[in-house]
Amino acid sequence: MATLKTLGERKIIEVLLGQFEKMSRMPIPFGDDVAGYPAGHKELFILKADMLVGETDIPPGMTLSQAARKAVVMNISDFAAKGVKPKAILVSLGLPNHLKKKDIVEIGAGLNAAAREYGTYILGGDTGEASDLIISLSVFGTAEKGTVMLRSGAEPGDLVAVSGCFGKTPSGLKILLDHLKASQEVREVLVDSVLMPKARLREGLALGKTGAISAAIDSSDGLAWSLYEISRASDVGIVVEKLPTAQEALEFAGTNGLDPAELTLYGGEEYEMVLTVKPRMWEKAVEASGRKLLLIGKVTAEKKVMFEYHGKRRVVEPRGYEHFLSEK
Amino acid sequence: MATLKTLGERKIIEVLLGQFEKMSRMPIPFGDDVAGYPAGHKELFILKADMLVGETDIPPGMTLSQAARKAVVMNISDFAAKGVKPKAILVSLGLPNHLKKKDIVEIGAGLNAAAREYGTYILGGDTGEASDLIISLSVFGTAEKGTVMLRSGAEPGDLVAVSGCFGKTPSGLKILLDHLKASQEVREVLVDSVLMPKARLREGLALGKTGAISAAIDSSDGLAWSLYEISRASDVGIVVEKLPTAQEALEFAGTNGLDPAELTLYGGEEYEMVLTVKPRMWEKAVEASGRKLLLIGKVTAEKKVMFEYHGKRRVVEPRGYEHFLSEK
Repeated sequence: MATLKTLGERKIIEVLLGQFEKMSRMPIPFGDDVAGYPAGHKELFILKADMLVGETDIPPGMTLSQAARKAVVMNISDFAAKGVKPKAILVSLGLPNHLKKKDIVEIGAGLNAAAREYGTYILGGDTGEASDLIISLSVFGTAEKGTVMLRSGAEPGDLVAVSGCFGKTPSGLKILLDHLKASQEVREVLVDSVLMPKARLREGLALGKTGAISAAIDSSDGLAWSLYEISRASDVGIVVEKLPTAQEALEFAGTNGLDPAELTLYGGEEYEMVLTVKPRMWEKAVEASGRKLLLIGKVTAEKKVMFEYHGKRRVVEPRGYEHFLSEK
Repeated sequence: MATLKTLGERKIIEVLLGQFEKMSRMPIPFGDDVAGYPAGHKELFILKADMLVGETDIPPGMTLSQAARKAVVMNISDFAAKGVKPKAILVSLGLPNHLKKKDIVEIGAGLNAAAREYGTYILGGDTGEASDLIISLSVFGTAEKGTVMLRSGAEPGDLVAVSGCFGKTPSGLKILLDHLKASQEVREVLVDSVLMPKARLREGLALGKTGAISAAIDSSDGLAWSLYEISRASDVGIVVEKLPTAQEALEFAGTNGLDPAELTLYGGEEYEMVLTVKPRMWEKAVEASGRKLLLIGKVTAEKKVMFEYHGKRRVVEPRGYEHFLSEK
C-alpha cells in the first residue's frame, strides 16, 4: 500500500479531491491559489488556508516571531498573486507543551505584526496542544467578479514575467541547513530571504487593476512548478528565455560550485508572483508593479515548458518543493 | 517561567489576545463562538477556525473518517449556536508519514460526508507533513447584521435552556479511555455520542429566526463553562434548577459510582446549545427547536452561577474541558 512518502503532496491532494463533492459553478477552480464563493451578483468571497508546521517549515535560525510572520506571508502571498486585498485572518495554533509564556507572546506578536504589515487584522482563532508547532491560518477577502487573476488565462504570445529575482531562498536554506559558505554581505541577503520573506501584495493589487495580466500564480513551490501550473491551467506552453537569477544566488552558486539554474528554477518558499502579460499592455503592467516586473519569456501554443539557452531549448523539469517527497 | 501546562488554554488565549491589535468596531466581540467582519451596510461575514489534533482529540476507537467528521462538527456547532448558516469549508491537513493512501481516502470521505450533512462544501485547502494528525478547518458564512445570537445579550428574568441532555460524551470517553462498564445498550449510546457527535444546526438556524434568544453558546467546553461564558459576556448570573442529565449518563453514573452532576456539568465535547430565552417567547422558541429545548434555570441579576438542589444553592465551579490543563 502506497505511503505518503511515495505518494507525495500533489498526489495526496488528488486523492483528497477525489473524495470531495464539488460545489456547482465554482467561481475559482479547485486548486488555484485561493478559493472563491459567490456573494450576490457582483462579488466573490475569497478564502485561503495554509498551515505552517514546525518540523518542515521552520529552518534552524528562525525565531518563533519569524515563524509566525512566515505563516502570514505564506497566505498573503496567494492573495497578492490573485490581486485580492486580504481583509482578516483567523489563527489556529497547535502548541507543544515545552513552550513557555514568552514563546506565546513572541508568536502572538509575530502574527500581529505581519497581519498589520499587510493591512489586515487577526479576528479570532483557536489553540490546543500538539506535538509539533502548528500555525494554521485562514485569510479572507472579497473581490469583484471577473477581477481575480487566475492561473488559467494565459494565451500564446503573452509575455511571461516575474515580480523579482529567484534563487535567494534556496541558497539561504543551504546556508542554514547544510552550512554552505557565502561572503558576509551575500549571506545576510540570502538568509534574510528565508527568515523575513515578503509577499508582493502592493504589486499584486496594482497589477490586478491593470487588466494586463492573463494568468498569475504565487511561486511558493518554485519557479519551474509555477510555470507548469500556468501551463496546465491555461493549456499553453512556456519558453523561458532569461532566467531571473538573483545576483546573490549567482555569487553563492559560484562560491559553492552549484548550478545557478537549479537554484532559480527548483527552489521553493519564494513568494514572488509569476505572471503572463498581454504584450500590448506590458508597459502598463511594468508601471503598476513599481518597475519590478522582469520579462523572462513568452507563452507558446505547444504545451511544453522549455528553457532556451544559447539558442538551444531544454525541457524544464516539472518539479519543485513538495511536502512528503522533498528533503530539506 | 510559566509553561503551557501551568498556564492552560484560556490563559494562553489571553496572552495571545494581548498581542493582537483589535480591529475597530468589531461586529462580534473577540472570543465569541465565531468572528464577524462587516460586509456593506447590512451584512456580516462570519468566520470560524477550529483545529482537531490527533493526540488530544481522537480517542481510541475513533476511525479516521469519524475524526474528520468530528473536525467538521466542532466548527459547524459554533455556527449553529450563533444561528448562522455555514456556506463553505477550507481544510488544512497535517499528515503523519505513517499514514497510507487508504487513510487519506478515509479522511477525505469523512470530511466530505460531514460537510454535505450540514449543507456545505469543501472549497479548498492545503496539506503537509506533521508528526501528529492535524485537521484544521475554517468555515465561513454570512449573516444579516443584528441577527447573530451572541453570548452577551442575557438579561435577568430570561429562561436558561439547552438543546439536549448532557453527560453522554464524558461517560462515553470514560468507557473508551478508562474502560468503565455499561450495559450493551447504554454503552452504544454513550460511545456513539463520542464517535458520531452531531451539531444542532437545524435547531440553531430556526432559533436564530425567532428573536426569542437573548444569548447563546456552543457547549463544547462543558455545560458549566458555557454558563460561565454567558454570565461573563452578559454580566448576569445564572441559577440552574434542573440538571439536564441524559438517562444513559444517569445509568452509567449509577453502575460506576460516579456523580451524575459532575458528568453533566463538567464534561466537554458535547455539541449542544446553551441558550437564554425571553420568557414571553418561550413557547415560540420551543416550537422552533422542534420541541427539543429543555428548561434548566433562569438568569439572575447577581453575577454568580449557582445550582439549586433540594432548595439549597451551591456555586457551580468555573471549570470545563481545557486544553493543556485537562487530563483525558
